Amino acid sequence: MRPEIVLFGDSITEESFKSGGWGASLADNYSRKADVVLRGYSGYNTRWALFLLHHLFPLGSATPPVATTIFFGANDAALSGRTSERQHVPAEEYKENLKRIVHHLKECSPAMLVVLITPPPIDEEGRFKQARSLYGEKAIPERTNEVTGVYAKQCVELAKELCLPSINLWSKMQETEGWQKKFLSDGLHLTPEGNAVVHQEVVRVFNEAGLSATEMPYDFPDYLEIDGKAPEKAFQQQCL
Amino acid sequence: MRPEIVLFGDSITEESFKSGGWGASLADNYSRKADVVLRGYSGYNTRWALFLLHHLFPLGSATPPVATTIFFGANDAALSGRTSERQHVPAEEYKENLKRIVHHLKECSPAMLVVLITPPPIDEEGRFKQARSLYGEKAIPERTNEVTGVYAKQCVELAKELCLPSINLWSKMQETEGWQKKFLSDGLHLTPEGNAVVHQEVVRVFNEAGLSATEMPYDFPDYLEIDGKAPEKAFQQQCL
Repeated sequence: MRPEIVLFGDSITEESFKSGGWGASLADNYSRKADVVLRGYSGYNTRWALFLLHHLFPLGSATPPVATTIFFGANDAALSGRTSERQHVPAEEYKENLKRIVHHLKECSPAMLVVLITPPPIDEEGRFKQARSLYGEKAIPERTNEVTGVYAKQCVELAKELCLPSINLWSKMQETEGWQKKFLSDGLHLTPEGNAVVHQEVVRVFNEAGLSATEMPYDFPDYLEIDGKAPEKAFQQQCL
Repeated sequence: MRPEIVLFGDSITEESFKSGGWGASLADNYSRKADVVLRGYSGYNTRWALFLLHHLFPLGSATPPVATTIFFGANDAALSGRTSERQHVPAEEYKENLKRIVHHLKECSPAMLVVLITPPPIDEEGRFKQARSLYGEKAIPERTNEVTGVYAKQCVELAKELCLPSINLWSKMQETEGWQKKFLSDGLHLTPEGNAVVHQEVVRVFNEAGLSATEMPYDFPDYLEIDGKAPEKAFQQQCL
């Protein structure tokens, strides 16, 4: 009955309903109007995401989502030959995989708003500290900011090619001084302030695309419109 | 595809996806396992909730929710003859309405876990301050803790009669010293600490009823189980 907005991505999406998370904030914005559906898969890259496509977004669904955010790349950009190499996907394949995801979603529903989000920047110091806590002194960096930037560029380029809105989180976050600790908790995942940036950017893009929460109607009457003595009137107008 | 857990209630449910909210925390717990669906209607009492039943929970649905929390009463308990009297529903009718909601849900799905939650206690001082900020010096209290307690009792009694789990939030919160300001922001709505109490109680009841998030399976493979060189294996086992 209500429109659905799907958040499809990796751990940065999966964790988006923790306190101060961007997904929860979005669900709060669309409360009474649309359902925000969490489809975040920690550790996943775009290659593995492809296996989920037909399950999460079945073709021929009578009620496809009105909007989907695609937020991968942080794991694809893990360096080859390092601790997280299992997650590594070459940048060209990352772009190709994103394109296949977009095409599938548009096949589900040509009207679906599809928003591409780049991975956030990497705070290499924070990431290295995290690696040392897991692997001890032998730890070596498994992601760099520069390499992640290459993936961000591929993502934004694809969005331009396909005329889709995108959020260049990699660039956006680096505009703020002290972004490394302000927006990232372990060099990769988001602090509440980092979540606020994602939330603000998603709201901006949704608004520009005509999916503003404030302009969408309530599913059922505002309680202020309900006559205490004849409540059926308000419900007759809106939903009976 | 995923099981659904519906949160049905008034503003204390509608606001449950704000930062630190009990609904968002629950969605985080069930991430990758079940969808937590927000159906909170600010200002609604049980009389008005009845108008929504067939829309939100259509009979004959192939995929009814596995669980629903019913969390009304804060508005039903507004005093007659005061500012919020439009929302007032007599305590006996409140109980009867709750019963009709439960019966409808059990008709949708006899296996559905239905959890009744009482309204929280009222911090009369906080509530009065809120009323004065809206109506000035002429403001008079529109809810009392004692009267809300009568509704909480009806709710818990009904749960016993129908052999349903319930959460007596009205009693539970008052066990903690300083509950008035610790758990309530304006004498009625919840602070982050108040949200934590609701979250903890819902998790406890869900666990006792066999709907523990930690024991539910992931919808798709944990990334640690995916072979980097032959990812299809993990997906073949679990979802292809």
